[in-house]
Amino acid sequence: MLTVSVLGLGLIGGSLLRALARAGYPTCGYDADPATRAAAREAASDAPTGKVAWRVADSVADAAADTDLAVLAVPLPAASAVLDELAHAGFTGIVSDVTSVKGPVAELVAAHLPDARHIGGHPMAGKEVSGFAASDPTLFTDRVWALCLPEPGRRSEPAGDAVPLDDWLTVAETVTALGARVTPVTAAEHDTAVATISHLPHLAACAIAAAGGSGLPGTLAAGSFRDGTRVAASPPALVAAMCGGNAPALVPALDDMIAALAEARARLTSPDPIAAVRNWLVPGHTARSNWPPTAGPTTELPATADHLLALGRAGGWLTAVARNRHTVTAIRPA
Amino acid sequence: MLTVSVLGLGLIGGSLLRALARAGYPTCGYDADPATRAAAREAASDAPTGKVAWRVADSVADAAADTDLAVLAVPLPAASAVLDELAHAGFTGIVSDVTSVKGPVAELVAAHLPDARHIGGHPMAGKEVSGFAASDPTLFTDRVWALCLPEPGRRSEPAGDAVPLDDWLTVAETVTALGARVTPVTAAEHDTAVATISHLPHLAACAIAAAGGSGLPGTLAAGSFRDGTRVAASPPALVAAMCGGNAPALVPALDDMIAALAEARARLTSPDPIAAVRNWLVPGHTARSNWPPTAGPTTELPATADHLLALGRAGGWLTAVARNRHTVTAIRPA
Repeated sequence: MLTVSVLGLGLIGGSLLRALARAGYPTCGYDADPATRAAAREAASDAPTGKVAWRVADSVADAAADTDLAVLAVPLPAASAVLDELAHAGFTGIVSDVTSVKGPVAELVAAHLPDARHIGGHPMAGKEVSGFAASDPTLFTDRVWALCLPEPGRRSEPAGDAVPLDDWLTVAETVTALGARVTPVTAAEHDTAVATISHLPHLAACAIAAAGGSGLPGTLAAGSFRDGTRVAASPPALVAAMCGGNAPALVPALDDMIAALAEARARLTSPDPIAAVRNWLVPGHTARSNWPPTAGPTTELPATADHLLALGRAGGWLTAVARNRHTVTAIRPA
Repeated sequence: MLTVSVLGLGLIGGSLLRALARAGYPTCGYDADPATRAAAREAASDAPTGKVAWRVADSVADAAADTDLAVLAVPLPAASAVLDELAHAGFTGIVSDVTSVKGPVAELVAAHLPDARHIGGHPMAGKEVSGFAASDPTLFTDRVWALCLPEPGRRSEPAGDAVPLDDWLTVAETVTALGARVTPVTAAEHDTAVATISHLPHLAACAIAAAGGSGLPGTLAAGSFRDGTRVAASPPALVAAMCGGNAPALVPALDDMIAALAEARARLTSPDPIAAVRNWLVPGHTARSNWPPTAGPTTELPATADHLLALGRAGGWLTAVARNRHTVTAIRPA
């Protein structure tokens, strides 16, 4: 069976360690913080039986030794150092990660571990809490886990398939075994999507909160303000790293939003503002009324990059990889 | 004691009827819908004692006859007809209303009931449900109720005080008796504030939902999308009436939001996008972290238009009017 190391044991890494062990994978964890390592060791021991659910290593090299898959679960600024340690240890397995932007991580891996078999990932799971103490083996159950395939154009380059599909299917198999829904994406598709669905809501929330959060407007504000600005309470350093780190994808998404609001403004100054703005509101209303997507029928799909990326573009996901790796079990939105 | 008629018995009007009766005001209700009138009559009777909590009239004229204060609780498009009936009945008491824009209502009153002693109001209370069946006498407890004073400039015009402060204090006394927090505002201040705290969140929600609610982004979308777009699910006709009806105040608020987002865009394309956008995020983060405002110490304020409007501009509210009407009990945000 595949052996996995998880490098970084915060909320996501710790939950991944627990979920992998529960799914039966031989697993080893590492965290730069000795107290976190001690907590993870303590949690691994089942006193009555004497069994240890997972191993906790004292270095990246020790954690990754003899493992087939190493998952980086550290914040983006800490990734370079971990990649350097993997390179120094001569790691030759598959490298994955769980960071929230995919293009910048791929660039870091190319710079620090140029021969890596890298499959970028992003579990769409989070909590208000953080740290190993908050980790939960069921965190990924029925949650989407974006998993990167290379850009279609790059697959036919003479240099060959930078990411062999077999490695992608190995990671997909592991993640679906945790109960997650694997959505195949290119790094660019992922970064464009999260710009719209996560980074724009953060910018809009801060703009509205700054304009209306205090004085008379703040006293009159009620439900639509409360929900529309909730994420403005997130730490600015975190949001800035997220937005600034994804600037190439966020800037065009922001341009589209500014253009949409400018169109709403034009309609509000037209001869019949109510009718004109009503037509502008309908597409967003329709999209939100149909969200979140519900699962359509289950199908078997050929396990090729083209079929997988088409599935992801349609908002679909896979729930299993066939043992022979020729097909995957796929679900499209209803 | 003041006698009050409530014209329109939906969620807000029905709750107002119940709250007034519970506070001891002789109260009469009217609704254009006979079934609603029947339900309101049924709810008024306390079978064991034979007492009737409020009267239900069969016409606007009958409801308003011999009452000191008539409160319009109908949607904006229905207001003209009710005002015409009040005019035809020769009503000479105070007219108030509970609609969500204050400038347009004031214009309607001026057109249909030119001699009215009109005090515009807007309780910042709502529910997902509507209709008399959902009405609740505690709906206004500890909720803000914006109450309009005339524009400062107009008070010194030779034509005199269009809204005598005495009438304003009568309505404020009545509304505070229901447990509401009365925030004094001009119609323009109110309409500008709700453009920012309510109408902008609706427009931003629809823009983001239209861009990211379906396909791959819709499948990846999680918490920040869910909350940031919640109000996009509201009926477009309702949102359009609200936004389009407040276009003169909403257009400048929208211009400010577009300018703020353009500034964020400029920072995202600067040499250090993370640091630059972080500074942009801070004011919204600070405002949202301090919202909602908490009550500061209670003070007594002179009951003059200048003092009252200054209180409202600071985000404050009053909780009582002194019996001699020389002072009010006021609270500013902490």
